[in-house]
Amino acid sequence: MNNKPIGVFDSGLGGLTAVKQIMKEFPNESVVYFGDTGRVPYGTKSPETILQYTRDDINFVRSFDVKMIIIACGTASSQALPMVKYENEDIPITGVVDATVYAAVRATKNKKIGVIGTVGTIKSGAYEKLIYEYDKDIEIHKTACPLFVPLVETGHFDTPVTRLVIEEYLEQIRDAGVDTLILGCTHYPLLKKAIGEYMGDNVVLIDPCAEVVKYLKKKLGSDMLHSDTPDKEQYRYFVSDDPKGFAQNGSIFLEKEIDGQVEKIDIEKY
Amino acid sequence: MNNKPIGVFDSGLGGLTAVKQIMKEFPNESVVYFGDTGRVPYGTKSPETILQYTRDDINFVRSFDVKMIIIACGTASSQALPMVKYENEDIPITGVVDATVYAAVRATKNKKIGVIGTVGTIKSGAYEKLIYEYDKDIEIHKTACPLFVPLVETGHFDTPVTRLVIEEYLEQIRDAGVDTLILGCTHYPLLKKAIGEYMGDNVVLIDPCAEVVKYLKKKLGSDMLHSDTPDKEQYRYFVSDDPKGFAQNGSIFLEKEIDGQVEKIDIEKY
Repeated sequence: MNNKPIGVFDSGLGGLTAVKQIMKEFPNESVVYFGDTGRVPYGTKSPETILQYTRDDINFVRSFDVKMIIIACGTASSQALPMVKYENEDIPITGVVDATVYAAVRATKNKKIGVIGTVGTIKSGAYEKLIYEYDKDIEIHKTACPLFVPLVETGHFDTPVTRLVIEEYLEQIRDAGVDTLILGCTHYPLLKKAIGEYMGDNVVLIDPCAEVVKYLKKKLGSDMLHSDTPDKEQYRYFVSDDPKGFAQNGSIFLEKEIDGQVEKIDIEKY
Repeated sequence: MNNKPIGVFDSGLGGLTAVKQIMKEFPNESVVYFGDTGRVPYGTKSPETILQYTRDDINFVRSFDVKMIIIACGTASSQALPMVKYENEDIPITGVVDATVYAAVRATKNKKIGVIGTVGTIKSGAYEKLIYEYDKDIEIHKTACPLFVPLVETGHFDTPVTRLVIEEYLEQIRDAGVDTLILGCTHYPLLKKAIGEYMGDNVVLIDPCAEVVKYLKKKLGSDMLHSDTPDKEQYRYFVSDDPKGFAQNGSIFLEKEIDGQVEKIDIEKY
């Protein structure tokens, strides 16, 4: 039994899809969520800045004495995970990249995997490196999709604009015949329907936040689980800017209203 | 004669369109440019954060003993200009909003003006307030165009996606019969061709950075002008992240290569 909360952070709202999965799979667990809405997006920032931001985020969630940390941000986990793991050896940290790759290499049959993500994620090569650690013979087709995040954030989940942008970004990957596509950014699962229709029924779409929670399920031994009674303040949300906007828009990712306080904090101090 | 530089800042690269105009209109003037690339975009941040960022930016350019400041960021100048003007009475500060409104109210004949900008700019109502100060009878049609900045930043200046997004955002404004459209964000002039084709030849598009420099021209008396010989280090560029990316992509806005150093600074310290 371990009644400490799970710490989850993301550059913005997208990591709430991981919280949604935790709520479903582990209804007793407590969560401390941090969304770095004051410094979003990470995907276009330099590697040094991304590392610095990730360190701040880790320090912030650690201030709640969490039992484990999930980095729900694709950019942070693809660029900063090895370093922050090294710096925080005393606590388990899981990034969306590990979990997603683990699922993708198991899903592919023809050994052709597509990887899409932000500019930073794709440039980092983090997914490829990890895929090759599992299997050097896998053929990888990747592309950055910088318009997907703004499309999601403006509610363009499945509009003519969305479909045109999907075609522009994914045509080559589809034509290469991948049977598995890693949605390497927490925002992308919200375009799942439109992406799925474009890629076809035979292509498995790997959703990072769903995978990270499945991965957790394997890791969370009974000694790490929360007791039967959920805490009073089970879900706590913190942001670095615009708590009101987070409370309003977060429900898109959480697929239900945010119940609980959303507090603004000064992340530069961590 | 006043050989001090002109300070220009923006949340990112867009303000370089103002620098381009200064180079053209005032070839002897020196410029210190700051692009807050580490904290871009401003348009989605809260009013308090935008004010704090604008103060930091002002303090940074003031550290170069500039003779005047141009706020090239539509969001910063629409939300923070009155306050920072009040706090910096000893130096002239011009925001894109003043200059743009000045031009728009002179351009309109049917007294119907369209205003487009980021979510923050449109919410602030800054353009309307100022337009009404000139003429209460003007009919204003406004809309936020949050996808325009990412479209510009991904090089979608005039593609099928761009035209579809333009139609989505501008249909109502066009159908309302405006004869003048304020492009209330430094990125938007890069979509001028596509926007112009959609709006039609009879609609005047007001480009903020071009207007701010025209406005300067009126303000810059001979005592404020730089001497005939340009400084050795005439153009200096500073950013809060990714100087390399700035040097590479800045040429899109400047319409020529960036000559001169691009230095990274820690804006949180100002």
